[in-house]
Amino acid sequence: MNAHMIVRYDGSDFHGFQRQAGLRTVQGELEAALEGLLGERVELSASSRTDAGVHAAGQSVSFRYSGAGAPPDRLAAALLRRLPADVSAVSSREAPEDFDARFSAKGKEYVYVCYRSAVEVPGLRRYATAVSEGLDAGEMSRAAALFEGERDFSSFGNNSGVERDPVKRICGARVVERGRFVFIRVVGSGFLYKMVRTIAGTLLEVGEGRRRAEDIPVIIEARNRGAAGRTAGAAGLHLARVFYGEERLEGALEGPWDFFGCFFPEHCDAKA
Amino acid sequence: MNAHMIVRYDGSDFHGFQRQAGLRTVQGELEAALEGLLGERVELSASSRTDAGVHAAGQSVSFRYSGAGAPPDRLAAALLRRLPADVSAVSSREAPEDFDARFSAKGKEYVYVCYRSAVEVPGLRRYATAVSEGLDAGEMSRAAALFEGERDFSSFGNNSGVERDPVKRICGARVVERGRFVFIRVVGSGFLYKMVRTIAGTLLEVGEGRRRAEDIPVIIEARNRGAAGRTAGAAGLHLARVFYGEERLEGALEGPWDFFGCFFPEHCDAKA
Repeated sequence: MNAHMIVRYDGSDFHGFQRQAGLRTVQGELEAALEGLLGERVELSASSRTDAGVHAAGQSVSFRYSGAGAPPDRLAAALLRRLPADVSAVSSREAPEDFDARFSAKGKEYVYVCYRSAVEVPGLRRYATAVSEGLDAGEMSRAAALFEGERDFSSFGNNSGVERDPVKRICGARVVERGRFVFIRVVGSGFLYKMVRTIAGTLLEVGEGRRRAEDIPVIIEARNRGAAGRTAGAAGLHLARVFYGEERLEGALEGPWDFFGCFFPEHCDAKA
Repeated sequence: MNAHMIVRYDGSDFHGFQRQAGLRTVQGELEAALEGLLGERVELSASSRTDAGVHAAGQSVSFRYSGAGAPPDRLAAALLRRLPADVSAVSSREAPEDFDARFSAKGKEYVYVCYRSAVEVPGLRRYATAVSEGLDAGEMSRAAALFEGERDFSSFGNNSGVERDPVKRICGARVVERGRFVFIRVVGSGFLYKMVRTIAGTLLEVGEGRRRAEDIPVIIEARNRGAAGRTAGAAGLHLARVFYGEERLEGALEGPWDFFGCFFPEHCDAKA
């Protein structure tokens, strides 16, 4: 039986998503909880192997199991008390035999969260990055739009030797202001390693006046990581949702949106 | 010289505000950082001795020192690198000789943060309490208004034997909804031990349909802790701001307000 589950987590105290011997990881905790519940070992496939410190409101995982222990649509509820406080299963259900959370994904939305403050805010430091009070979000917004389209994003990849195909499609990139918060939302068909954090870091340099919006096409064209800006810190990054319907990608950033999308995956397109 | 300072902190990893031998407390960290900076020991007076797990956007402290090491208005900036990541000094300045952050305070605003969700949200659990999706915030709002006025609040005090005067003035109590969040805002001249958490717990029982708004005057009248509802968890409670001008108290909850007030003390009335 094939199961599909949406999970969210606070990545602060994990060594990233992917299982690593001897280290606390999200995959390790989920697989251990599932083994305890089901009495059999399972192996998760995940839409994104988020790095240490990166959070998820709508991470998507799938795995096969015998069907014993709990039916797929009861898995999330049954895991509630078996998971540590910093990871939870939001929903679960049976998936078609050929569904794979990673390989069936058509796209993902990430949100990078910043807040304007001269001093760090203790209650936000795990989830957001402090930026200058004077950050120019309007210029960042113009720059963000220039990322849209299918391009060779080698300038924003961090180990291009390993990545097979640096051509990715960015379906939407926006900068949203809410009070002191500045959110960078990016929807794409796929991302190179640390690509969203490098886009965020480059956009922040635009907001700081170190670069201009018009520089973005030139940076992309360079196909050289040295041309782009810094890699923004992990703590501001949130995997918001995963798309399995191709048609949803282009309009994904239309419509109302609020801050709480970083914590609540209500808009996750969990349809297999 | 007398100094007045606004500090904020994430209370998650502290054994409360007040200094305790051998335990990590906010006061302990602040006094140690000040001693390192000034080369002399200082003793803080604070507007509120928040409990373990309780946060503050605008805690207010004062202390006397020789004036050597740093002038009062430079203290906050000078402490930046001396404080741990979960506590920060927002602003500082010289205060009149007779100013005391605790005894000069005319009132305080606390915010209790809840969010509607069937499962706990890992990224919110330190700062907010998960409540039922069906919580009736309208009924809570009607109930909150019934707390306003000067009353004997013994029913909401948790060690009434110790408290000298159970008569306190609640200047405003409101329930504000924002998406999945439900905020309980309370402004008062003073509070009994755990009073805000007991008000919040009782209002949550109203929202859950276990009590009705009309029960509030009856509970107050009982002057008996057993008449009120549960004590809501510490993690949802935020000390928002401290008032030193009497005239500001009654209108304190008028005007626009947003969620971020829980993290940013921009509206703190820090005038001595």
